[in-house]
Amino acid sequence: MFTQTIRSILTCSLFSLLFALGAHASSDTVTWKLATSWSKVFPPFTDTVENMVTMVEQMSGGEFKIKIDDVSKHKAAFGVLDAVKLGQYDMAHSASYYWKGRDPVLLLFTTMPFGMNALEQYAWFYRGEGMEWMQKAYAKHGVYSFPGGNTGMQMGGWFRKEIRSLEDLKGLKMRIPGFAGEIFAKLGCAVTNIAPSELYTSLERGTIDALEWVGPSMDMSMGFHKIAPYYYTGWHEPATELQFIVNKAKFDALSPKNKVILKAAMRLSAYDMLIQNADMNAAAWDRMKTEYPNIKIKTFPKPVMDAMRQANAELIAEESSKNQEFKKIVESQRAYMQKARAWTLIGEYAYIRDNQ
Amino acid sequence: MFTQTIRSILTCSLFSLLFALGAHASSDTVTWKLATSWSKVFPPFTDTVENMVTMVEQMSGGEFKIKIDDVSKHKAAFGVLDAVKLGQYDMAHSASYYWKGRDPVLLLFTTMPFGMNALEQYAWFYRGEGMEWMQKAYAKHGVYSFPGGNTGMQMGGWFRKEIRSLEDLKGLKMRIPGFAGEIFAKLGCAVTNIAPSELYTSLERGTIDALEWVGPSMDMSMGFHKIAPYYYTGWHEPATELQFIVNKAKFDALSPKNKVILKAAMRLSAYDMLIQNADMNAAAWDRMKTEYPNIKIKTFPKPVMDAMRQANAELIAEESSKNQEFKKIVESQRAYMQKARAWTLIGEYAYIRDNQ
Repeated sequence: MFTQTIRSILTCSLFSLLFALGAHASSDTVTWKLATSWSKVFPPFTDTVENMVTMVEQMSGGEFKIKIDDVSKHKAAFGVLDAVKLGQYDMAHSASYYWKGRDPVLLLFTTMPFGMNALEQYAWFYRGEGMEWMQKAYAKHGVYSFPGGNTGMQMGGWFRKEIRSLEDLKGLKMRIPGFAGEIFAKLGCAVTNIAPSELYTSLERGTIDALEWVGPSMDMSMGFHKIAPYYYTGWHEPATELQFIVNKAKFDALSPKNKVILKAAMRLSAYDMLIQNADMNAAAWDRMKTEYPNIKIKTFPKPVMDAMRQANAELIAEESSKNQEFKKIVESQRAYMQKARAWTLIGEYAYIRDNQ
Repeated sequence: MFTQTIRSILTCSLFSLLFALGAHASSDTVTWKLATSWSKVFPPFTDTVENMVTMVEQMSGGEFKIKIDDVSKHKAAFGVLDAVKLGQYDMAHSASYYWKGRDPVLLLFTTMPFGMNALEQYAWFYRGEGMEWMQKAYAKHGVYSFPGGNTGMQMGGWFRKEIRSLEDLKGLKMRIPGFAGEIFAKLGCAVTNIAPSELYTSLERGTIDALEWVGPSMDMSMGFHKIAPYYYTGWHEPATELQFIVNKAKFDALSPKNKVILKAAMRLSAYDMLIQNADMNAAAWDRMKTEYPNIKIKTFPKPVMDAMRQANAELIAEESSKNQEFKKIVESQRAYMQKARAWTLIGEYAYIRDNQ
């Protein structure tokens, strides 16, 4: 009796103790799986995911862990939206325009030809209507979406010959995907798609005459500057934003603390990517132009730019005529950009212009 | 004996229980006090502090709280560096150039005439040598320092008459503080300082002919555009960064988790201020130019800009000749900016230029 009493008291107390500690620890303890659309090492994209995951783990005191699977593991670069929707993964890191075939409005959350620059676009997302439109669009696909890192300005691509007129585009064989590809096709180019691993050889052998990739930071290792000396300034991807996609039920089930931690880590790692890529672009462009002084920076002549703008407007009008949601988001972006650009012009642009 | 044994077991178990829970709770539980150099409501500066504090509290699950005192409470806008150093406050939100009289190198962590824009400067801080130089400089003053939010481009100020030549600056009465004030003084202006509350009346009555404030977002409520129609583009504060200053011993004593949370919240709220001010500037400039169509955007003529650049170079050379640390930080900024600007010119700048 005496022994039993003590045992029951001990058990009870230990149980209380373990329960109290256990409850405290378990409520916020989560381990998630994240799928990226990238290969294992693909800076600055993969750095952004790793930074996000590290911050979440450290800020939660190790209670919220996220494991990253790259494409070599899950084998479905463009399948990550479905994988997250179906709960095979808790979240993903990808680019919204990969799903434009499935839902054209998703294109609008990456970047648009002749659209906003990175600061203007972040302002639209966070201070304008951007986040609201994006959540609404992704709700149809059963997931949440958040900005996932910006490349800043992308370049217009590498050309083996200078483009002096619209005539020079007729029959030009170019690798350029997406909306910009449709624009070049409208202007008479023979637009093709070629696997990244074959791009250099295709350009070297003349299978293609030109191609578009990203910007100095990611173009340099591809080596295009060694065989195509005309580097055109950008117009079609002025602020390419990646995406974090999160399973709705899984996000909703997080503790309030973990929700805030995850959102802050995504937002911060996204901004950080813009800064990282600015730094990488500066270093890469400096090395390129020093090692290959024959690279010529060119801007498409005005008639070519005007024709591109016209083709872009036609493509947008066509999609808008059959898709009310697309139309409304484009209108929101245009209205925001009109005000934001007026400020950019008298602020940052005027400063750079007058201090060369 | 029986009762005593039970009592001692109970006490021991309860003690263990309370100790275990207590240790878990208390290790990360912190309440800090923060002093700002601003009045209570002063957007976007005060929003940045509030966002930071809210994030810290939420991400720590309420364990890390920070109480904000504005100038009306502590009465020492420029005394916050000492207050943090001496431990009267745990941290502060202010601007580094307020202490240039005490230590000229601190000026360099805010912005410099003809210096980097916001993206270039954040890249220097986070990917170049900026953070290292800043920690080193503030270590002399016994505190840590972190970027605390950027205004983006500031405007060159409001002028009642157009500046057509260097001659027009001779004897011009202008309110412009800091390094830029010294530059205008070198060019023959009568530079004065006037309390913010008296600026409008001084400009209206002709006590001054011109003044510099911030940019559309913060200028609009001051009303200068109603009485001085010439609004000059910026050159002297291309990327004004505020500062978070943290007491060294207090920061070092934080748990690893709270350190990461605080650093992430400061970094994120700083980026967010750049985006908030871009949005506020866009909205304010849109309203200003609609309501007051007579506002004329002007850029100083090339001879004036060249003379300002020359005066700026002389002031920097003078300080560099007597201050090795100043010299080295300026060299670090110049080397970084040279590469970063070359990229800005072919990237973002070329895009905006060709899409007006």
